[in-house]
Amino acid sequence: MIGLFDSGIGGLTVAREIIKRLPNYSLLYLGDTARTPYGNKSAEVVAEYGVEAVKFLLSKGAKIIIVACNTVSAVGLEAIRQAYPEVPLFDVISPAVTAIHEQNQGHHIGVIGTRTLVGSGVYQKLLNQHGKYQVTAKAAPLLVPLVEEGWLNKTETKKIIKNYLNPFKQAQIDTLVLACTHYPLLKNIISARLGKRIKVVDPAVETAKTVELWLKQNPSVTAALATGESSYFFTDLTPQIGTIASNWLKRTIKLTKVTLS
Amino acid sequence: MIGLFDSGIGGLTVAREIIKRLPNYSLLYLGDTARTPYGNKSAEVVAEYGVEAVKFLLSKGAKIIIVACNTVSAVGLEAIRQAYPEVPLFDVISPAVTAIHEQNQGHHIGVIGTRTLVGSGVYQKLLNQHGKYQVTAKAAPLLVPLVEEGWLNKTETKKIIKNYLNPFKQAQIDTLVLACTHYPLLKNIISARLGKRIKVVDPAVETAKTVELWLKQNPSVTAALATGESSYFFTDLTPQIGTIASNWLKRTIKLTKVTLS
Repeated sequence: MIGLFDSGIGGLTVAREIIKRLPNYSLLYLGDTARTPYGNKSAEVVAEYGVEAVKFLLSKGAKIIIVACNTVSAVGLEAIRQAYPEVPLFDVISPAVTAIHEQNQGHHIGVIGTRTLVGSGVYQKLLNQHGKYQVTAKAAPLLVPLVEEGWLNKTETKKIIKNYLNPFKQAQIDTLVLACTHYPLLKNIISARLGKRIKVVDPAVETAKTVELWLKQNPSVTAALATGESSYFFTDLTPQIGTIASNWLKRTIKLTKVTLS
Repeated sequence: MIGLFDSGIGGLTVAREIIKRLPNYSLLYLGDTARTPYGNKSAEVVAEYGVEAVKFLLSKGAKIIIVACNTVSAVGLEAIRQAYPEVPLFDVISPAVTAIHEQNQGHHIGVIGTRTLVGSGVYQKLLNQHGKYQVTAKAAPLLVPLVEEGWLNKTETKKIIKNYLNPFKQAQIDTLVLACTHYPLLKNIISARLGKRIKVVDPAVETAKTVELWLKQNPSVTAALATGESSYFFTDLTPQIGTIASNWLKRTIKLTKVTLS
């Protein structure tokens, strides 16, 4: 099975893209809703939580792991690789970086994400390996609670987005990466605000493409992946989580509460 | 020592009131920043975290416990009492309820707090034990991240507060309880918006009064409380936490990272 985890419900936007491209495979989703969100937490704690999530997914039969959380992708990958060196591991940052480079989407890249992701400087580091890029990264932490409240079209949300995006427009970026799983739900407002000249990159879409390609190139692993029903595990369950999960995935899913050890 | 805990940094607004009234006692503060916030989490998980926090504070020498988190006070007190029946336990809700009743502050009480606190119906239940009260409670979850971002005087914050308070004005409440530790930092904006007719209750202030009175009435416990240096423990540390803690307490404090078991 394809194991996929996030700090909470946000990774469901990644799951959605995976399901679109790979509808026949079964997913094991884990959302750490008992400790969500990760975006303001330290790199050390985030990495520790990431390793625990992978341990859980492997114990449930996952054969490959997708880190669907941008914050864990930024600061937890090394710890996960060290703990589980044999496991095929995907994150949501490298596919976005590759897409920016290969599709020649510009050289001044804007990044909005959580405080911890922005603090890590991960986009600058990875883009530097490909070429000469200028990166302007800013934390936009209020967008997560706004999305979780369902305030997608409220005037307040548009106003806050405008505030967050102004520095990027002033800096004259040519590309903006939505480096938090919640932001794709605000993509229309963000794109409208930025105008046509600035390209918006959704790491969830790029990650799904990367995983699809990899599976084609690795038939032995692909053959071992189960087809059929997916499972959605959460470390805490509330009615709000059920509502959001069904809305985002546009289907009713069964949620199971689990404890990480 | 006086043990005091919260889901994160919010309880520092309670600590501040305790320090004002009881400046000679040493506090043991615990903020569960590795799992913060609690306000959208289930009652079951919140209660479990509360018990773990009390266990930690007692192991460090706390003689009385103040539950500085409104959400734990709403849904976790019973679990804590069952686990530690001997320990003098204070919460931030009963003192507010007593104050409303004794000071005759009206009969239509508005409550803003987290989703889990509002869902618990705790204010209606406790006020019913005192007399006939109508309670209008609404979750205002966006105020917590706005405060943590330091957006205390931004237009967007004022707009969002206006939106949250409109239903209370329409319902013609006569009292509003700020049932989340972050809200007292927005008290001026909230009071201005509500107008002079509506009284605003800050549970932190009422809790400090209650604890002070109780200590006077229980000299044997009071004599066992240590004086001097306070300790501030957090399950995760980031630069943001240090900045907020110093700003709110108006002094530089030493923060220690701990793990709950």
